[in-house]
Amino acid sequence: MTSTWLPVAADHPFGTGNLPYGVFTTTEDPSPRIGVAIGDHILDVGAVAQATGSDHTTVLSAANLNPLMAAGRPVWTTVRAEITAWLTDTAYRPHVQPNLTPRQDAALHLPFTVADYVDFYASEHHARNIGRIFRPDGEPLTPNWKHLPIGYHGRSGTVVVSGTAIARPSGQRKAPTDAAPTYGPSLRLDIEAEVGFVVGTPTTLGTQVPLGAFRDHVFGVCLVNDWSARDIQAWEYVPLGPFLGKSFATSVSPWITPLDALAHAWTEPPPRDVEPLPYLDDRTTEPGGLDLAIEIALNGHTVSRPPFRTMYWTAAQQLAHMTVNGASLRTGDLYASGTVSGPDVDQRGALIEITWNGRDPVKLSDGSTRAYLDDGDEVTVTATAPGPDNTRIALGEVTGRIVPTRG
Amino acid sequence: MTSTWLPVAADHPFGTGNLPYGVFTTTEDPSPRIGVAIGDHILDVGAVAQATGSDHTTVLSAANLNPLMAAGRPVWTTVRAEITAWLTDTAYRPHVQPNLTPRQDAALHLPFTVADYVDFYASEHHARNIGRIFRPDGEPLTPNWKHLPIGYHGRSGTVVVSGTAIARPSGQRKAPTDAAPTYGPSLRLDIEAEVGFVVGTPTTLGTQVPLGAFRDHVFGVCLVNDWSARDIQAWEYVPLGPFLGKSFATSVSPWITPLDALAHAWTEPPPRDVEPLPYLDDRTTEPGGLDLAIEIALNGHTVSRPPFRTMYWTAAQQLAHMTVNGASLRTGDLYASGTVSGPDVDQRGALIEITWNGRDPVKLSDGSTRAYLDDGDEVTVTATAPGPDNTRIALGEVTGRIVPTRG
Repeated sequence: MTSTWLPVAADHPFGTGNLPYGVFTTTEDPSPRIGVAIGDHILDVGAVAQATGSDHTTVLSAANLNPLMAAGRPVWTTVRAEITAWLTDTAYRPHVQPNLTPRQDAALHLPFTVADYVDFYASEHHARNIGRIFRPDGEPLTPNWKHLPIGYHGRSGTVVVSGTAIARPSGQRKAPTDAAPTYGPSLRLDIEAEVGFVVGTPTTLGTQVPLGAFRDHVFGVCLVNDWSARDIQAWEYVPLGPFLGKSFATSVSPWITPLDALAHAWTEPPPRDVEPLPYLDDRTTEPGGLDLAIEIALNGHTVSRPPFRTMYWTAAQQLAHMTVNGASLRTGDLYASGTVSGPDVDQRGALIEITWNGRDPVKLSDGSTRAYLDDGDEVTVTATAPGPDNTRIALGEVTGRIVPTRG
Repeated sequence: MTSTWLPVAADHPFGTGNLPYGVFTTTEDPSPRIGVAIGDHILDVGAVAQATGSDHTTVLSAANLNPLMAAGRPVWTTVRAEITAWLTDTAYRPHVQPNLTPRQDAALHLPFTVADYVDFYASEHHARNIGRIFRPDGEPLTPNWKHLPIGYHGRSGTVVVSGTAIARPSGQRKAPTDAAPTYGPSLRLDIEAEVGFVVGTPTTLGTQVPLGAFRDHVFGVCLVNDWSARDIQAWEYVPLGPFLGKSFATSVSPWITPLDALAHAWTEPPPRDVEPLPYLDDRTTEPGGLDLAIEIALNGHTVSRPPFRTMYWTAAQQLAHMTVNGASLRTGDLYASGTVSGPDVDQRGALIEITWNGRDPVKLSDGSTRAYLDDGDEVTVTATAPGPDNTRIALGEVTGRIVPTRG
C-alpha cells in the first residue's frame, strides 16, 4: 500500500487504498463540490486540481461526479494516480493541507445525477426466501431465475442520499384474508441491503456491453437500501412487478468507491448449476464476484451480516444482460444487485426474510422486538472489502430513519 | 375559435385551437429551439419572444421544453395566450412572419428531457386480452386490477423521438414447449399504441397529488409507441415485470399538446364496477376521460382505431396513484396510459391482440400478412381530439421503422 504523509493509520478503512468520491458542502462554503475521503477528512480535489494545475481540473471542479464518470476509464485511472500522488508526495502538502475538511464538519450529498435505476434480484437465497413467503404454493424460484439475472426498473427520482429521513409510505394493502384492499400507512415497512453499481461510460442505442467490457463502463460501487413496503408490494406486484411498494425512496451511500479500489476484492462467484447462454457465460472471464462483508444495524443493533460473495449473478452479468437488447447506458445509470442474503438466517438482507414475514421477530439490544420497522427506527448498512496488504477498506455507510407517514 | 391572420384553414388539425410545442432544428440553424406547430409551419417562439420583448423569453428560448414545463400552470396559460395573440393580431405579423419554417424543412427532436418513465395498464380490454393470451389457465384480470391502476417503471434513457429507427432487439426467448431458452433476435416484435402524459410542475418527496391537482402538474400529452418484444417479455416478466422486452426503445411523438388544447376532449370515463378507494374516486371530480381517436397504420395500411375514451383508469387517477406513497414528481416525468384497446378487434392497440398472438394474421394492402413486425416495417400512430367549433385537432404522430438486429 502507498503510505500517505497525512496522519492516517496504515489500516484505516479510508486509507490510500480506498479514496472514494463524494460531493460535500460545509457551513462556510455551501457550494457542492467533489471530495475524496482520506482518513477522517475530505479532500477538496477540485481545489487541489486548480492549485496544482491538474489536467483534470474541469471534471474535478464540477458540482457532481457526472463529468468525471463520463470521462471514461483511462481518466479514472489517471485521476486516481494523481490524487494518490497528492497524498503520498510531501511536495503537495502545501496544496493539500488547506483543502482538508474534517468529515464530521461536512454535509454529504447525492454524488451523481441518477439516470436510470435498475434493481436486480441476484441472490439465490433471497429469491428462494421471498418465493416461499410470497408464493407458498409454488416453486420458490421461477423457471427463468437461473437462466437470466431478473431485474426491473425503479424510480430514479426518489433515489436519496444516506441520512435522508424516510417517510412511511401510505397506499393500498390487502392481506390475503381481507375481502378488499384498504388505504393506510404501510404496516410492513422493510429494508433491502444491496450493492449498487454506477455507470460512467455511456453507450449508444443498439450497443451490447459484453462481460469483458464491464470495467470500462462501471465507475464504482455504493451501498443501497431499497426500502420496501411489503404489504403494498404484495398486493400490487402481479403481473407487472413492484411499483409503489418501492418507489417512495431508495437510499444510497454518499461515497462511490471506484472499481480500482476493489482490486483485491474480486472473487469467483458460487458454482452455477445451469449452463448460461454465451453472453452470460463468465467461466473464462476475470472473476466477477466481489468479497464484500455487509452489516445491517437496526437502532445500533446488528441484525445481519450478508456476504456479497454468495450472489449467484455478478454485476458484469447484470450489465451484459441489461444491454443485450441494445438498451443504451447513460452516465449516472445506477443498478443494484438485489437484496444480499447468505444461506444463514443471520446473513439475510431484509427483515421479511430475517423475521419470516413477522413470524420470528428480531430482539434488539433494548429488549424490544421487531417484525418490521417502527417509526423512529434507524437502519444503517455498512460494508468492508479486502484492501491492499491484508487491510480492509470501507464502503460508505447508508443510513436512514423512519418518520411517520405524511399521507 | 380564434382565427389567425396566417393562411391556415379554420379546420386545420394544427390550427390555433391546437398549438402544440416541440423542439426543432433546420439545416441553416442546427441549434435546437422551441417551436409551436401552426398549420404546415413551425413558429420559432423563442425568436418571437425576443423580438416582442415577452416576459417569457427565457423559457421560450431554451433548448428544450423543460424550463417552460417547470414554470407551472399559470405560465403555461399566459404563454399560450401570448402565442395565440401573435398568430391572431396582425400587429405581430412583422415578428412572426420571418420566424416561420415549413414543417417539412425542420428536423424534430425529443422535446423534453425524460426524468422517470412509467407505463400503466389502464385498458380493461387490453388487460383482458393479454391475460387470456399470457395466462390462459387463469382469470384474465388479476384481483388488484379494478382496485388500482397497475403500472411499472420503464427505461427513460431509451425514450426516443418519432422517426428514430428501431433495431430489433435480441435476447432470451423461450416458447412454453421449449426445454430451455435460446438467444437470438425477437421473433415477436410488437407495438403498443398509448397516450403519454408529461409532468411539468414537480413535487417534493412525501407529497401526494390528489385527483383535483392533475391539471396543475401535467403540462401536456403526446403519443407513445411502447415497442414490445413479446417472446422476450413472456420469458422474463415473472415475477418482477417487463424489463428487456420493453427497454430497447419507446417512441414518442415530437409534439406535446398542452392540456389547454384538449378542453373540448374531456369526457366521462366508462362506468366502473368496483368502488374505488377515496384517493381514486373521481365520481365528483371533473371528467377525467379523454375522447381521443387513435389510428395505427402498418406500412400505410390502417390496422386499428383504438378509442381512448374506453380506458378504465384516467390519467388523473394514474397520477394520484403514482404519488399516493409520497413519491416525488420531476419536471419531465413521462407516464403512459398503457396500450389503448377498445372492445372490438379493429380497436386493439397491439398486434398480439389484433392477431391473437399470431393465430389470426392481419392482411396488409400489398397482400402480405403479419403476425408480428418484419424488418423494414413502419408503424405510425396518429390521433385526433375534439377541438373548438366542432373541428378536430391532431396530436403529433409517432412513427418508427424496424431495422435488423445489431445483436
